[in-house]
Amino acid sequence: MPKNWALGRGGARGGPGRYVPAVRSGITPREALDCVLAETPVLRSETVSLPEALGRVLAEPVDSTRVLPPADNSAMDGFAVRAADCAGATAEAPVVLPVAFEIPAGASTPPALPGGRAARILTGAPLPPGADAVVRQEDTQRRDGEVAVRVAPPPGEHVRRAGEDVEDGERVLEAGGRVGPAQLGMLASLGRGFVAVHQRPRVAILSGGDELVEPDGDVSGGRIVSSNSWALAAQCRELGAEPVYLGIARDTPQDIERRLRGGLGADLLVSSAGVSVGDRDFVRDVLEKLGCRLSFWGVNMKPGYPLAFGRIDPERGDAAGPLVFGLPGNPVSAMMTFEQFVRPALLKLAGASRLFRPRLRARLAEPLRKKPGRLHFVRVTLAREGERVVARSTGNQSSGVQKSMTRADGVLLFDAEATEWPAGHEAWVQVLDPDFLASDDAGF
Amino acid sequence: MPKNWALGRGGARGGPGRYVPAVRSGITPREALDCVLAETPVLRSETVSLPEALGRVLAEPVDSTRVLPPADNSAMDGFAVRAADCAGATAEAPVVLPVAFEIPAGASTPPALPGGRAARILTGAPLPPGADAVVRQEDTQRRDGEVAVRVAPPPGEHVRRAGEDVEDGERVLEAGGRVGPAQLGMLASLGRGFVAVHQRPRVAILSGGDELVEPDGDVSGGRIVSSNSWALAAQCRELGAEPVYLGIARDTPQDIERRLRGGLGADLLVSSAGVSVGDRDFVRDVLEKLGCRLSFWGVNMKPGYPLAFGRIDPERGDAAGPLVFGLPGNPVSAMMTFEQFVRPALLKLAGASRLFRPRLRARLAEPLRKKPGRLHFVRVTLAREGERVVARSTGNQSSGVQKSMTRADGVLLFDAEATEWPAGHEAWVQVLDPDFLASDDAGF
Repeated sequence: MPKNWALGRGGARGGPGRYVPAVRSGITPREALDCVLAETPVLRSETVSLPEALGRVLAEPVDSTRVLPPADNSAMDGFAVRAADCAGATAEAPVVLPVAFEIPAGASTPPALPGGRAARILTGAPLPPGADAVVRQEDTQRRDGEVAVRVAPPPGEHVRRAGEDVEDGERVLEAGGRVGPAQLGMLASLGRGFVAVHQRPRVAILSGGDELVEPDGDVSGGRIVSSNSWALAAQCRELGAEPVYLGIARDTPQDIERRLRGGLGADLLVSSAGVSVGDRDFVRDVLEKLGCRLSFWGVNMKPGYPLAFGRIDPERGDAAGPLVFGLPGNPVSAMMTFEQFVRPALLKLAGASRLFRPRLRARLAEPLRKKPGRLHFVRVTLAREGERVVARSTGNQSSGVQKSMTRADGVLLFDAEATEWPAGHEAWVQVLDPDFLASDDAGF
Repeated sequence: MPKNWALGRGGARGGPGRYVPAVRSGITPREALDCVLAETPVLRSETVSLPEALGRVLAEPVDSTRVLPPADNSAMDGFAVRAADCAGATAEAPVVLPVAFEIPAGASTPPALPGGRAARILTGAPLPPGADAVVRQEDTQRRDGEVAVRVAPPPGEHVRRAGEDVEDGERVLEAGGRVGPAQLGMLASLGRGFVAVHQRPRVAILSGGDELVEPDGDVSGGRIVSSNSWALAAQCRELGAEPVYLGIARDTPQDIERRLRGGLGADLLVSSAGVSVGDRDFVRDVLEKLGCRLSFWGVNMKPGYPLAFGRIDPERGDAAGPLVFGLPGNPVSAMMTFEQFVRPALLKLAGASRLFRPRLRARLAEPLRKKPGRLHFVRVTLAREGERVVARSTGNQSSGVQKSMTRADGVLLFDAEATEWPAGHEAWVQVLDPDFLASDDAGF
């Protein structure tokens, strides 16, 4: 009897044989996710320069040591005035003021503005002491050494107050937030050329199977391309994680061990195919030899049942303990189990506070049917119809049909115990691509 | 009188002076966007290897030259049978079949299955001629050389048909689609190690102003960090465009020209500050010298009125004509005009079919007020409340307040002629970050 055979029959019915390992099997996706996240640490922080920080997660809150803007300044090109000097000014009866001086944007502290005078001022230039308003140049007429003001500005008009953006000591960004373009601009304004962010997770990816070849390989005799490693590496890169490809392991313990050892320095190790009930289960033997403690094998989901998860235990193995995912070999199962379990783990490793996709309620365009017992992750297209979002199956939901993934906008959660949902039924959908909400125009 | 002064006073009121250029001014955001997109070409294609293709836009449709899966194969670990041989099998009355041979996943064409026999088969392995169904090993019991089958499979059970994913010659991916992880996996499966995608737009970014310093610079005397270049470069990178930073130009025509010439080889040139009505308008002079034909200056929007757009004309200048955007200098204005006009232009250059953000209807949490005449782009946070999305202003909407951007989930469009919208009013919001739809759990 092949090793682990009993496991495939189910522990309860088959009874514990010599080779049945102490791992949980047939658990719910929720139990699996809770287990994964409980085992997943948050990576240490590192200090990086601003361009490296884009897309990373802040490992420290950012408090300002500056006042922004640093001084009262003009929001417009025009003239700095004392508002009281322009009281009652209109286009028909302008107030004429001598122009005392000009203040370019790059000026440091300008001289004080005497009463009854105006100062030419450019956007961003500091307001001269004494002035309390700016008149836009569109509301003035300039003559030799004088300006005719045609409006009566209230005090503070077109003036940006010192500190109106950021006060000294103010908490500007919170730890755990993502650094996007606006956050990067803010860090630059605060003079923070370096910032502490969480490390990028490194993910070692192994393919396994004698039938697999690289994309340029010979596919005669039923061989197929090891496409999972490409899709999984891309899923990593889209999250900002660094994939390390370990290649295609042949179905021998020696080749598998050689390659897996190359991934022991990673934060997370993904093996596509091999940790299964099949006769070729060398990956599991090798993982155990390397000190891997499996937490579960087999999740009540479709696609993706034969998902395994564990951790290389540094006390038993010879390296520092990456998380280990054994993903099913079918292309859709591999991508979906990555999406549901590896993705949140990678986001947690990277320090993110939000680990899950946007979700929304959508109505079924057509009925769905299945057997009870497993949660189905149904690939759907999404469309806005009036106020509602309508979900349609991408077609054949077989776990080998990659087209069901290339066409998907989202993943509809078809509850474990449900068997038939009619058209119009409302269900949760995880949004993979929010572009379905985009229109052909900008909205203005 | 400074050059272009008349423009600032408004052409109609001031009358055309000697220096009023033939550019449109005070146009609507829609007119500005239409103008930008009409001038924007689609970049040529280039053939890249698979890892380079992630995030790019396909420049060619992809037709399969393979059948996927290449042969009928098993969806499960179990036993290949003739369904007719197992008719009536149950757990109580199993059908016992001799096991003729085993078929590993890496096998090429297996021998034919004789009638009244079963073949051990692994997931992905080719079905032997003669067999038409697979019985899961969970539904069997193996004995020496025999297997007891405890269910009666219908023909086709657990069999993946050759071509059920992709037929030979089938159009699998369309030109204009984005290459994400699923598309990359599909390309790999099809043996396409190289694929034609549109070039990445290169964006030259110039900062300008004597008051500006780099993030590690001295900010005494009212100087401020040139944060716009950092935010704009990050906006480019998030779209997959390549920013080229030209540095901070001092307020002299010589320095501006020297730096702008460094950007003439780019596809798009962004100048932050400088193309204005102000007294320091050297950028415009230099651009004209380099052959720039301005299409418009001044858009009826807030923030962002002083936006300029044009193109370096290859017949007049000495290089191959990048698009030119003169963005306002205020941090929020710079990011918002990039978001509304440069972003769609970059997506069009990159070949994308969808140029705009996801949009949705949201209800105002608080009333909004403004003067009529300009479309306001209000930075808002978004929250799901029951079935509805509620938008709240991020606070002070002054164009100098960067915090209004760092906190924004979306941009609410406050129509040009509207003056007051009450709480509860429903308006369009462009979604910058769909994460507001995310929950604290995966939904299962």
